[in-house]
Amino acid sequence: MTELAETPAQPGAARTQGRPRSSRAHEAILEAVLDLLADGVSVEALSMEAIAARAGVGKATIYRRWAGKDELLLEALVKLKGPPPQPLGDSVRADLVRLLTVVGPKDERAVRVMPCLFPEVHRSSEAYRIWQEGMAEPRREVMREVLRRGIATGELRPDTDVEVTTSLLISPMLLHRMVRWNPALDGYEDLAERVVDTVLRGVTA
Amino acid sequence: MTELAETPAQPGAARTQGRPRSSRAHEAILEAVLDLLADGVSVEALSMEAIAARAGVGKATIYRRWAGKDELLLEALVKLKGPPPQPLGDSVRADLVRLLTVVGPKDERAVRVMPCLFPEVHRSSEAYRIWQEGMAEPRREVMREVLRRGIATGELRPDTDVEVTTSLLISPMLLHRMVRWNPALDGYEDLAERVVDTVLRGVTA
Repeated sequence: MTELAETPAQPGAARTQGRPRSSRAHEAILEAVLDLLADGVSVEALSMEAIAARAGVGKATIYRRWAGKDELLLEALVKLKGPPPQPLGDSVRADLVRLLTVVGPKDERAVRVMPCLFPEVHRSSEAYRIWQEGMAEPRREVMREVLRRGIATGELRPDTDVEVTTSLLISPMLLHRMVRWNPALDGYEDLAERVVDTVLRGVTA
Repeated sequence: MTELAETPAQPGAARTQGRPRSSRAHEAILEAVLDLLADGVSVEALSMEAIAARAGVGKATIYRRWAGKDELLLEALVKLKGPPPQPLGDSVRADLVRLLTVVGPKDERAVRVMPCLFPEVHRSSEAYRIWQEGMAEPRREVMREVLRRGIATGELRPDTDVEVTTSLLISPMLLHRMVRWNPALDGYEDLAERVVDTVLRGVTA
């Protein structure tokens, strides 16, 4: 994140600055949140009692570290997703493919946890904010930077709509990974390349 | 759907053929399912008791008409989404824009109900099938037909990947309408046109 001035600071981090982030209780609590969500517990039903029980700590330990469930959830989601991959500054194509390809060992819980957030968006504007700040916006911002760079270098059309193109690139990958929206894409090992190349070249003859 | 030979028959319809589809009880039960889901009841928590109570009928009335919750849910979702818009056969561009633009009065419950299905996909392969058959696949198939026609008429590149392009076109609209994935797109009244034009022209300079 350090290369991108406009990227917001990792949310959730501020609250716990100066505290021992490596403490086993802290990590166990975050892991408990993610395990419960991955097991199918809805965000709405997620209780401090259940989190404490799963983590093997008392509720007081949680309340000492986080102001409430929303703050805890936000930090757990940031931990789950990790920082967005960084562009290398090669060609726009190479960087876009890199951003759309999962880098490093993937936390298998992510594909089960993310769909759980979707119904919450309509229930709570706070859940929407947490999801956007913790997961969606940092990834969009890295993508925007690459597209803006491509416009500046002349690789991309000067009239490229950065927001629309960002959504075009990320949305198909997101829906396929999260909920297997189009099962016809199951066999595509090079899905990221194909998405990028189609957006770059267009389909007009 | 009648123009498209490969489009699957409307699921859920077969079970109730010959029965009075217009009966008030039948409609009240379907409406009750949609109202409960739109109110935030999860698919998992949706009970025949709650549906019967909301519809003002006895549980036996439901069981006489549907084999189980899955069948009832499928018919309710098909009713909610309605048939996919039909291409008019003008230019590929005009038809793609038409397919991505919501046609007719929109059922406001759809944007609240659809995200509720997402967590279910990982809980139940039956829920995945219902969602795909009732909502996703009929819309993809209409889109594929337009793209195949464009390849045949020479409007689109002969090597256009129909599956990837279908996902590219629909996914950004779906994520934006359902969960407002990218709030930067809120102000785009011509989002469908912009998505279609970007995919048609590409963004390479």
